[in-house]
Amino acid sequence: MENPQVLIIMGSDSDVPVMEEAAKALDAFGVTWEMRVASAHRSPKKAADLASNAAARGVKAIIAGAGVAAHLAGVLAAETILPVIAVPMPGGALNGVDALYSMVQMPGGIPVATMAIGKAGAKNAGLFAVQILALGDAAMAGRLVEYKASMAEEVEAKDRALQVKLGRA
Amino acid sequence: MENPQVLIIMGSDSDVPVMEEAAKALDAFGVTWEMRVASAHRSPKKAADLASNAAARGVKAIIAGAGVAAHLAGVLAAETILPVIAVPMPGGALNGVDALYSMVQMPGGIPVATMAIGKAGAKNAGLFAVQILALGDAAMAGRLVEYKASMAEEVEAKDRALQVKLGRA
Amino acid sequence: MENPQVLIIMGSDSDVPVMEEAAKALDAFGVTWEMRVASAHRSPKKAADLASNAAARGVKAIIAGAGVAAHLAGVLAAETILPVIAVPMPGGALNGVDALYSMVQMPGGIPVATMAIGKAGAKNAGLFAVQILALGDAAMAGRLVEYKASMAEEVEAKDRALQVKLGRA
Amino acid sequence: MENPQVLIIMGSDSDVPVMEEAAKALDAFGVTWEMRVASAHRSPKKAADLASNAAARGVKAIIAGAGVAAHLAGVLAAETILPVIAVPMPGGALNGVDALYSMVQMPGGIPVATMAIGKAGAKNAGLFAVQILALGDAAMAGRLVEYKASMAEEVEAKDRALQVKLGRA
Amino acid sequence: MENPQVLIIMGSDSDVPVMEEAAKALDAFGVTWEMRVASAHRSPKKAADLASNAAARGVKAIIAGAGVAAHLAGVLAAETILPVIAVPMPGGALNGVDALYSMVQMPGGIPVATMAIGKAGAKNAGLFAVQILALGDAAMAGRLVEYKASMAEEVEAKDRALQVKLGRA
Amino acid sequence: MENPQVLIIMGSDSDVPVMEEAAKALDAFGVTWEMRVASAHRSPKKAADLASNAAARGVKAIIAGAGVAAHLAGVLAAETILPVIAVPMPGGALNGVDALYSMVQMPGGIPVATMAIGKAGAKNAGLFAVQILALGDAAMAGRLVEYKASMAEEVEAKDRALQVKLGRA
Amino acid sequence: MENPQVLIIMGSDSDVPVMEEAAKALDAFGVTWEMRVASAHRSPKKAADLASNAAARGVKAIIAGAGVAAHLAGVLAAETILPVIAVPMPGGALNGVDALYSMVQMPGGIPVATMAIGKAGAKNAGLFAVQILALGDAAMAGRLVEYKASMAEEVEAKDRALQVKLGRA
Amino acid sequence: MENPQVLIIMGSDSDVPVMEEAAKALDAFGVTWEMRVASAHRSPKKAADLASNAAARGVKAIIAGAGVAAHLAGVLAAETILPVIAVPMPGGALNGVDALYSMVQMPGGIPVATMAIGKAGAKNAGLFAVQILALGDAAMAGRLVEYKASMAEEVEAKDRALQVKLGRA
Repeated sequence: MENPQVLIIMGSDSDVPVMEEAAKALDAFGVTWEMRVASAHRSPKKAADLASNAAARGVKAIIAGAGVAAHLAGVLAAETILPVIAVPMPGGALNGVDALYSMVQMPGGIPVATMAIGKAGAKNAGLFAVQILALGDAAMAGRLVEYKASMAEEVEAKDRALQVKLGRA
Repeated sequence: MENPQVLIIMGSDSDVPVMEEAAKALDAFGVTWEMRVASAHRSPKKAADLASNAAARGVKAIIAGAGVAAHLAGVLAAETILPVIAVPMPGGALNGVDALYSMVQMPGGIPVATMAIGKAGAKNAGLFAVQILALGDAAMAGRLVEYKASMAEEVEAKDRALQVKLGRA
Repeated sequence: MENPQVLIIMGSDSDVPVMEEAAKALDAFGVTWEMRVASAHRSPKKAADLASNAAARGVKAIIAGAGVAAHLAGVLAAETILPVIAVPMPGGALNGVDALYSMVQMPGGIPVATMAIGKAGAKNAGLFAVQILALGDAAMAGRLVEYKASMAEEVEAKDRALQVKLGRA
Repeated sequence: MENPQVLIIMGSDSDVPVMEEAAKALDAFGVTWEMRVASAHRSPKKAADLASNAAARGVKAIIAGAGVAAHLAGVLAAETILPVIAVPMPGGALNGVDALYSMVQMPGGIPVATMAIGKAGAKNAGLFAVQILALGDAAMAGRLVEYKASMAEEVEAKDRALQVKLGRA
Repeated sequence: MENPQVLIIMGSDSDVPVMEEAAKALDAFGVTWEMRVASAHRSPKKAADLASNAAARGVKAIIAGAGVAAHLAGVLAAETILPVIAVPMPGGALNGVDALYSMVQMPGGIPVATMAIGKAGAKNAGLFAVQILALGDAAMAGRLVEYKASMAEEVEAKDRALQVKLGRA
Repeated sequence: MENPQVLIIMGSDSDVPVMEEAAKALDAFGVTWEMRVASAHRSPKKAADLASNAAARGVKAIIAGAGVAAHLAGVLAAETILPVIAVPMPGGALNGVDALYSMVQMPGGIPVATMAIGKAGAKNAGLFAVQILALGDAAMAGRLVEYKASMAEEVEAKDRALQVKLGRA
Repeated sequence: MENPQVLIIMGSDSDVPVMEEAAKALDAFGVTWEMRVASAHRSPKKAADLASNAAARGVKAIIAGAGVAAHLAGVLAAETILPVIAVPMPGGALNGVDALYSMVQMPGGIPVATMAIGKAGAKNAGLFAVQILALGDAAMAGRLVEYKASMAEEVEAKDRALQVKLGRA
Repeated sequence: MENPQVLIIMGSDSDVPVMEEAAKALDAFGVTWEMRVASAHRSPKKAADLASNAAARGVKAIIAGAGVAAHLAGVLAAETILPVIAVPMPGGALNGVDALYSMVQMPGGIPVATMAIGKAGAKNAGLFAVQILALGDAAMAGRLVEYKASMAEEVEAKDRALQVKLGRA
């Protein structure tokens, strides 16, 4: 994609099933994205270049997904002033606690905005990017307000369904 | 402050020494802020009102600092579509791991962007808000680029000072 | 149900298989209950309303089940003076440690009575509500005494069965 | 005390500085209490007797504070149908995580209502006992409502003081 | 069994598949055992009686297996001067870390000798009881020396088999 | 000492302040001991020799104290059929959790009886050795019974003192 | 093998599926290896002999894989001045955190170079041995440079494949 | 220094008090070193350049010390085929567990040899570098053998001193 609004970078193509939740969330709000594989350790130059060139390409936020010693988000954040949003991957012997600590415990000066481990975190990374974009886009802000209302309605519907199932409606 | 760009909310006034790092970071970039005490548990209505009214006041991002069962950021995020940035407080018997998990492990639909536990996290929360604001403010983006360069220079200076101290310069 | 004695609230309908253990325990003692879905984050107003209206409806205790960043119990406790009993859900990358810390580490002023992670916790939440109700209901207290005796007898029976299985009875 | 409403039991007299927070909370609501030292391991008979005799003495709730392998609350709960509220003590090499797990992870059948590690937990244990007693005492319920309001006012006052300190009031 | 040398007590009959490793180890050395189900919480009197009567029955060591808030070993140790050996059960949301902490972190005065979580721990509990009995039984000591040698031989055999498998023998 | 009953080995002389609790407990029961410094890593031959020669010297139990990657107890257990009792040292960045896991998680075949981290564990290691020795020494068993009674009396005395302090005696 | 360059030792033959990743990495660079089973606890003399004789056999590095209370690497390091590289095994109730802490937290004086838990760690142990050997072997250093380049190319290929899959190439 | 044998890089000059233990260990064996400050996040280019140029300067091993989200070692390893040895810094809210996980859990392909958290790890990083260099330097190997012997003698001396202190020598 020539000029995506959001750049989704993951350390391995095995992260796609988790990180596509971010893409789906962006799609739901009409935000364009590019999804790339780049490793902080195996292809550091590529990772750095993606980050350092992003702003000039019009990217507004970078979402980084990585597992175990998850350095990707920090390495990208070192090369850009764009907001970097991190998604720790589950899996491995520590099931993502290692990735969480590697992402969230950034030293002062280089922020990385960390989301939950796994699919919920990837979805929220997408939504968070939408929230950032909505600051300058009133229509998108309106869709976020509707989305919030729809979540409440969905809870309401599940609650009603539960009452029916329990024979109490 | 009438129309702050960033709203800093903390669960207790004992969090001020940590959260003022966020304010200092915002000051360094000329970003206006309002710092408030509001508790998700002891003053839930106040907390909810601060969040739900923020967008209308022109606020662009909310920074929430809280400790132990740190529900504040999630409770604020439930009431706004603005980006919410969370800072887990250290202290207590678990020294902030509880606050970190309470903040970062948000379910899908309600993102909370979590920073490191303590002062580094508070500073980065401020910087992350600046990064968001800089998306629509080229001058601020320029200052962020300079800030990044100054960090590299500061490391360089510390390295040189170390060589002198070691008698190797 | 018009006037349940216990209100069971869970953050997601996926929590039903765990939380129905609480309902079963209440049923065993003839305690009436209402089971609702309400999310601290996706439907905060509904959650708050359920809690703030409970006392007026005659509810004597609220049981809250939630997972990951489990804010539900704390958010309900903020809105009521009724006893709130929390059940951390297992699952997710941290398998309930996050939910446990989010529930049990409440700050002073807003108690949340936390039970074990998962089904044992849900069953005990129901039993704990019965224990509270039995303070003002001698017949129910009598049934609790019988229940305690029956548990001891059940252990006795399992011990005898083991001796038979081992060929030592 | 002849007929206390709440029985506070701790495993060691070194727990008094923490557990007196429970007593203070009870005092604030005019609830009578008895504070005893009894160990699940060093004086098991005494601990069991205190629990098994409590209901007959008119006790309505038992608060148990213990550290490390904190078996006290479970051992008391095994001997009574009264609500048992547990407070894990901080300290020791694991600083209370051991006590928390030992208290909260009770098997199905024997509920223990666990509070936060340390002083906040002890205070909340007292308040939770008040909440239980208030179910049958409208005046006490009224005082709890006032207490909740006073907490919100206290947050409000701290917020105003912060504004003054920041020169923004 | 009239006068077993070792008493194996477990909190639930679901622990048999793990705890039978202890019985197997005892059988291998001709040590007699009795295996009982008794719960610290559901049948506290039975548990206490088993422990307090054990010495008079000629029992030389007690092995206790329990899970989650594993109070059984501590409760037994409170009632006897016999050595109590603990085996934390795996399973539950925390997979035995809770049981481990509940067993090993005993306060000064009441020792509980804790083994590894699960089957390795149960086997070692049996072997440790044999080691204790061997202090007064030279023939059994001799069998332990042989067992140690056989373990070394078994490693040697596995090493040789690996060389064959690798085509290097 | 020519023929100590218990051999106390520690990985470093900095462990003496903790491990002397074991010696005190042994002294209280008239059990003779030898206290040695030997490291599994820095003096492996010495450690192995102490363990392999212990039985022939009449030693009945070995107590091993070590910190961080605490291999000492396992290394000693590999060289003897005597009961080995382990005390994890507190301190270091992980404050003894590393030592606890290194000691308690022994594989099947080589038992290590692990006590609590720190002074309580050292005291209990001494008491546990006394419990083992008392199996063949009726007088020592009698003193253990008295010790247990004295602990209960001490709790009783502390409880009475608390009542006096509270003005309720 | 008469004179292997690298000695791979594992505590149990059940570790082969993990540790063969180390052998594969060595094979890829033409480094000769010997793979042995030896236990720090069940065959301590064999383990010590393998380590103490390794240098004389021309071995340049030892790779040790072990699980739970993983003492093997430390015990080998105590007997040799060769570099010892450790691989914590996953599995067991703690899934390798115990093995990690037992390996990495070595006291000053006896280094153990610890890799990640499981297969990634085993592969990296092999590669790290190659890196050491390449210090004195320019051809091998050249192959490492090529390997690094091939990893970057592999990431590149995966990225291109992802673009095709996404219909964006 | 023109051509150091070992390059010590740390993320912040506040790490000097820990990392100088590595330099002391190298000095003790006559190994030359250069100590530099370079941050993976604040000065990524400098860090990458130090690593990528090291081999050409004759450096044989790189020691990297960093704290919290400790990406430095991984980032350096991505840029060099030299052995990279990592030292997790203590401190911060998680006291080095975050740094340990960030360093040790490297993905397959990019090894990082991780040492213990803190000063013991820094000392061992230096010694491990010496062990690597000694592979090609028989005199240095001889000094390592002497060092190992001196450690055993030091333990022996401490043991003798303890016997004197205990009045048993």
